Amino acid sequence: MDAIGTKRGKRGPQLLTIPKPEPEPGEVLVRTLRVGVDGTDHEVIAGNHGGPPEGEDSLVLGHEAVGVVEESTVAECSPGDVVVPTIRRPPESGINEYFERGEADMAPPDATVERGIDRAHGFMAEYFTSPAEYLVTVPRRLAEWGFLVEPISISEKALELASASRSSFTWEPEHALVLGNGPLGLVTVAMLRDEMDVYCLGRRDRPDPSIDIIEKLGGTYIDSRETPVDEIPGEYVAMDLIYEATGYAKHAFECIDALAPNGVGALLGVPDSWEFFVDGGHLHREFVMNNKALVGSVNSGPKHFEAAVETLDDLPSWFLEEYVTTVAYYESFADAFDTPETAIKTAVEFGSL
Amino acid sequence: MDAIGTKRGKRGPQLLTIPKPEPEPGEVLVRTLRVGVDGTDHEVIAGNHGGPPEGEDSLVLGHEAVGVVEESTVAECSPGDVVVPTIRRPPESGINEYFERGEADMAPPDATVERGIDRAHGFMAEYFTSPAEYLVTVPRRLAEWGFLVEPISISEKALELASASRSSFTWEPEHALVLGNGPLGLVTVAMLRDEMDVYCLGRRDRPDPSIDIIEKLGGTYIDSRETPVDEIPGEYVAMDLIYEATGYAKHAFECIDALAPNGVGALLGVPDSWEFFVDGGHLHREFVMNNKALVGSVNSGPKHFEAAVETLDDLPSWFLEEYVTTVAYYESFADAFDTPETAIKTAVEFGSL
Repeated sequence: MDAIGTKRGKRGPQLLTIPKPEPEPGEVLVRTLRVGVDGTDHEVIAGNHGGPPEGEDSLVLGHEAVGVVEESTVAECSPGDVVVPTIRRPPESGINEYFERGEADMAPPDATVERGIDRAHGFMAEYFTSPAEYLVTVPRRLAEWGFLVEPISISEKALELASASRSSFTWEPEHALVLGNGPLGLVTVAMLRDEMDVYCLGRRDRPDPSIDIIEKLGGTYIDSRETPVDEIPGEYVAMDLIYEATGYAKHAFECIDALAPNGVGALLGVPDSWEFFVDGGHLHREFVMNNKALVGSVNSGPKHFEAAVETLDDLPSWFLEEYVTTVAYYESFADAFDTPETAIKTAVEFGSL
Repeated sequence: MDAIGTKRGKRGPQLLTIPKPEPEPGEVLVRTLRVGVDGTDHEVIAGNHGGPPEGEDSLVLGHEAVGVVEESTVAECSPGDVVVPTIRRPPESGINEYFERGEADMAPPDATVERGIDRAHGFMAEYFTSPAEYLVTVPRRLAEWGFLVEPISISEKALELASASRSSFTWEPEHALVLGNGPLGLVTVAMLRDEMDVYCLGRRDRPDPSIDIIEKLGGTYIDSRETPVDEIPGEYVAMDLIYEATGYAKHAFECIDALAPNGVGALLGVPDSWEFFVDGGHLHREFVMNNKALVGSVNSGPKHFEAAVETLDDLPSWFLEEYVTTVAYYESFADAFDTPETAIKTAVEFGSL
């Protein structure tokens, strides 16, 4: 069958031919519908993150998948069910406490492998198999958009960690700032739009489709070239919640000054090493005198996928139509990877229901 | 009556003569037993933090008090009750939402004044008055040590915020690191000793009474001159919980590397501005890839005072005897302020039960 992946010695994603997998006992065979593409895929393709399973030269890409069950060996899953797979799986050394608790997202990097990213093949193929326990069911009406469940689940987890950090006192956040108007930032603006007054920081000139979406969602676009993060409280308002999805390391520190008292910043970016000056004394004092918090968040667990299904169901259809700018049939997969600057979310399609 | 406070134009704490207060309706008159001295008092005396009420030249010091009710205008408090006052009170502008919710510790600095610290007189006097709602009752058997309820409550709040930040997943902390072997650090080692394997960082040579206490509590002393904070995981173990009570700004950043995956650092120090280099990209990535968190914590609320009373009751008597190195009768109050390096916790005594 056909798959899309990396291949040692080749630049960019490749069309691969691999055997069609067969489900083992406890597993399900899934016919792939669509698989989203995100920044992590580009990092993996560039060789900066993750890589193939040990001893292999190729990695099948894809971690934002939706598919339809073709064959099931378990009672909980039936042919025709639309499912989304979680990403983290036990490493070579076998299952560990994090998987036993259903909290693989809290496993340290060496206690897990990640399908489509790190040491395990992904879902960007005509078919994939998975133990049923790592599949989340999605209503059939959402099949077309189901590949968004994984990225939404990433925000579900980060927002859950942020709220938890403020759960020992009365916290009623009114103002939220999303750093980054990429795909993760925009969907988070959509997720927060009914609960808070949302601002979204980017560095794009108008007209720009991501700015249009922010404003149509009722949010306020902030151009970081005009207003640096730490000047946002003076120009706009101090933020109760900040969600960082830029991977720009200075934002992790500047956001402390953009927080209101008792505010929390959720960090999601994964930058490389970068030394710079900070007024560490001032930042430390800000943390303490105003009860501020920073939480880092990676990956997501089954409960966040479940929450993401509900969130997806609540997103307006105009948003989904404008947000997903490219769905490329897999034989033309390059269209989903080499995209113009105005592209927002792209996906590769293998088939339909 | 006699009181101890600051006086404009005078260096160091002074013996003041002030009118004996009279309780207004809803208030209680308390005869002071003991008042602890901490780093904040020294900051206030040095003019670096807080100061007198507007238009006044003196500030009565003291925020770690215990006393006995002498006169009460309310049913909840009776003469003979041993009580500890909370510190934060509504500012000139009146009561606000934080006080209404019993969460004055979450008020931003301009929404509160602090007795004995910032714009409100403290408790270091023969008598003080307080609305009954800001008093916490202590069993009579703890009267002697009741001035420790306030500092313990500071740790109760910080540890509560730290745990809350880890409450959205299974978190079973095994290893804790307390940064600082001053009075707040040592009492926190004592608070954590039954729950975790505790390490405490200082920079003192042996023999030293604070190191003796750490070891008698079952903790491990780490000399920061030999093992910098970010090298602790290599030399000892990575920490699930770090409690910072040094006010040394680099610790707020170095502790991110000393945390185990899913760990949390609670910051309590209040340093001045200090610019230095950090590998911000690395720290940002550490936050994210390992789900780490930092929480700042200031002051404490009624629920933390209540918890502190129970904690105090559980502390071994040998600890209290060795921890409180000086109790100076108020006419010799200088003994509680000008202390040798081996002093740990000191207090001023006004009377006994």
